[in-house]
Amino acid sequence: MDGKKITLKDIAQATGLSVNTVSRALKDKEDIAEATRKMIQGVAKEMGYVGNSLAGSLRSGLTRTIAVIVGDVANPHFAIMVKDIEKAARKHNYTIIVLNTEEDNELEERAIYTAIGKNVDGIIICPAQHSPDNIRFIQRNGVPFVLLGRRFEGETDFDYVISDDFNGGYLATRHLLENGHEKILLLNGPSRISSARERLAGYKHALKERGIPVVSKLITENGVLTGDARKTVKDLAAEDAGFTAIFAFNDVFAWEAIYMLRKMGHRVPEDYAVIGFDNIQSRNFFPFSLSSISNSKSKMSRRALDILLNKINNPKSGNRYHETVETRLILRESTRSHA
Amino acid sequence: MDGKKITLKDIAQATGLSVNTVSRALKDKEDIAEATRKMIQGVAKEMGYVGNSLAGSLRSGLTRTIAVIVGDVANPHFAIMVKDIEKAARKHNYTIIVLNTEEDNELEERAIYTAIGKNVDGIIICPAQHSPDNIRFIQRNGVPFVLLGRRFEGETDFDYVISDDFNGGYLATRHLLENGHEKILLLNGPSRISSARERLAGYKHALKERGIPVVSKLITENGVLTGDARKTVKDLAAEDAGFTAIFAFNDVFAWEAIYMLRKMGHRVPEDYAVIGFDNIQSRNFFPFSLSSISNSKSKMSRRALDILLNKINNPKSGNRYHETVETRLILRESTRSHA
Repeated sequence: MDGKKITLKDIAQATGLSVNTVSRALKDKEDIAEATRKMIQGVAKEMGYVGNSLAGSLRSGLTRTIAVIVGDVANPHFAIMVKDIEKAARKHNYTIIVLNTEEDNELEERAIYTAIGKNVDGIIICPAQHSPDNIRFIQRNGVPFVLLGRRFEGETDFDYVISDDFNGGYLATRHLLENGHEKILLLNGPSRISSARERLAGYKHALKERGIPVVSKLITENGVLTGDARKTVKDLAAEDAGFTAIFAFNDVFAWEAIYMLRKMGHRVPEDYAVIGFDNIQSRNFFPFSLSSISNSKSKMSRRALDILLNKINNPKSGNRYHETVETRLILRESTRSHA
Repeated sequence: MDGKKITLKDIAQATGLSVNTVSRALKDKEDIAEATRKMIQGVAKEMGYVGNSLAGSLRSGLTRTIAVIVGDVANPHFAIMVKDIEKAARKHNYTIIVLNTEEDNELEERAIYTAIGKNVDGIIICPAQHSPDNIRFIQRNGVPFVLLGRRFEGETDFDYVISDDFNGGYLATRHLLENGHEKILLLNGPSRISSARERLAGYKHALKERGIPVVSKLITENGVLTGDARKTVKDLAAEDAGFTAIFAFNDVFAWEAIYMLRKMGHRVPEDYAVIGFDNIQSRNFFPFSLSSISNSKSKMSRRALDILLNKINNPKSGNRYHETVETRLILRESTRSHA
C-alpha cells in the first residue's frame, strides 16, 4: 500500500487540467479563476500533495533550513536550547538540522562541512574552540552564522550571543564565600572554552574582593564529555584537599560531584555546598534541589535565531552582534547555610 | 571579510582549467590525469570548496537527510535517542532534521509535511497517536518511515521498533508488590499512546497474578508535557488515597512525583516507593537514585535507523519490521525495601 510522492502531473491528471494551470493555481496566481484555484487546491490537499521545496530552493537560493551545531544534544542544557531554537524557527517557517561535535575538532569541521554542503541558510554553533579555523571556514563560504554561548576574543567579526559568564562565576563564588566557605573547588571546563575562562575570572575576582588567596590546586579543568569531573571530586575529596564547597562549570558536573560525594559518604550541603551553572532545573522538576546560575537559555536561543535570520535576510547590512545575556543566582538546597 | 560560497568556476579560474575538467576531477573521474586530479582537489580544499549536495540530490533522488520527529527533544529520553540516531546516521553519511510535535496532532501533521517537503529520504517518528492519519499521509507519499517507541495495533503495515512495554509494566509492578506494596498509584501517560496502554496491561497482569484488586482510582492518565503528573500526586496524596507506591510512565513523571512528595513533607522511599521508566540515569549521574525500567534506548535508536536505511536502500523489498526490544528492571534507592 506504500504510495509514491504526489506530483503536479498526478493532480493535472485527476483534474483534467494542464500541469501549468495546476502549478499556477497552487501558487495562488490570480490569472487562474478563483473557483478553479480552490478546486485544484482542494484536490491537491485530498491527494496528499506536498510539493518539492528542493526545486524551490534552487530557484530562490534559500533552503529555509538552518544548522544547529552543539557539543552533545543529550546534555540537557543543549537539548533545551535546541528545542527552543526549533520552536522559534518553526514560527519563521524554518527547519533545523542538528549536528553534534562531541567537543571534537574534526567532528566540528565535519559538521560544518555537512551543513554547508546541505546549503543551509545559516548556522548557529556552540564552537568546540580548539581553534577559530572551523568558524573561519564558515565565514569564507559566506554562510551567515552566530556563535552560541562561547566566543573568540580575538575574532571581532564573529557574531555571538553569550551569557555573562564573568558575572555568573562571580555571583556563584561570592554566594559561597558569604556562606563562610573559603576553600572552593572550581570544577571548571577546559580552558580553551571562553565561558570556562570567563567563569574562572569571575571566581578569582570574588576571592580577591574578599582578600582570600587563590589556591591553584583547587582550580581544575575537566573534559565536558569524559567523566573527568567525577574523578576530580573523588581524588580531591579523598586526599582531603581542604575544600568545603564546589562551584561547577555546569549542572551536569554539579550532579556528578554530588553523586560522587554521597557515594563517598559525604552529605550535601552539610559537608559540602555545591552550586552549578545553567539552571537546568528551571525546566525539570528534579527531586533534588541544586543551586545554580541561570543563563537565560531561552533568551539566548531566541536571540541567536533572531540575529541569524536578520543576517540571512539582510546579507549586506554588515551589522555586528556581540550580545551578552544576564546571569542570575538561583538559590536552592545544595548551598543552604548551616550556620 | 565575509566570503561567498566557492564554486567550480572559482576553482576553474584559479587553476586555469575548464569547469568541466574541475568537476570531473572532483568526482575523481579517471579520464583526468591523476596528477591533474590531485592538483585540482588540493586547490579546491585550500579554497574551502564544499560543493552543493542539493544539485546532487536532484540528480540522485536522495538527499541523505532523514527527519527525526519526536514529542519534545528537551525531554532527556528523546534527547538521548536523537543523539544516538544522529551519531549512527553520521556513520552512514546521513544528516538529521529534528522536529518536535509537542504531542499535538496539528504540529505532528505539520512536522510530517515539512519533512516530506524537504525531500527527506526517510522518517523516524515517535507518533503522537491522536490518529493514524498523519502516518498514513507519510505512507501515501511513499516516504520510508519507522515508528519509534509506539505502534498502532490496527495498522500492521506500519513498521516499528518499540520496547517491551507490557513486560516493563509487569516487572515494575511486581517489584513493588514483592516489597509489600498493594496500593500502587499508576501515574500513566495518555491512553491513546500504545506504550501507556501496554504498561497498564502489565500493571494489571502483575496485580491479578497476586490476586490484588485493581483500583480504578489509582490508575491515572497524565499529559506528557503538562505538569499533570505533579497535580495528580499532590491531589491523591493530600486526600490520602491510600497508596504507598508509585509506578510512573516515565522518569520525568517519577522525578515530578518525588519532587512533589518531598515538598509535601513525605520521604522517598520510606513513605512512598517510586519507580520510573526509561532509565535516563544510565546516562546521567544524577544525585538521587531512581529505580526504573530500562528500555534500551540506544538499541531502539540504532535499530530504527538500520531499518530505515534498509527501507531506503531496498524500496521494493516489502519486508515488515515489527520489533520489540527487551525491558529490564533497574533497582536503585527510590524503591529500597525498609522491611
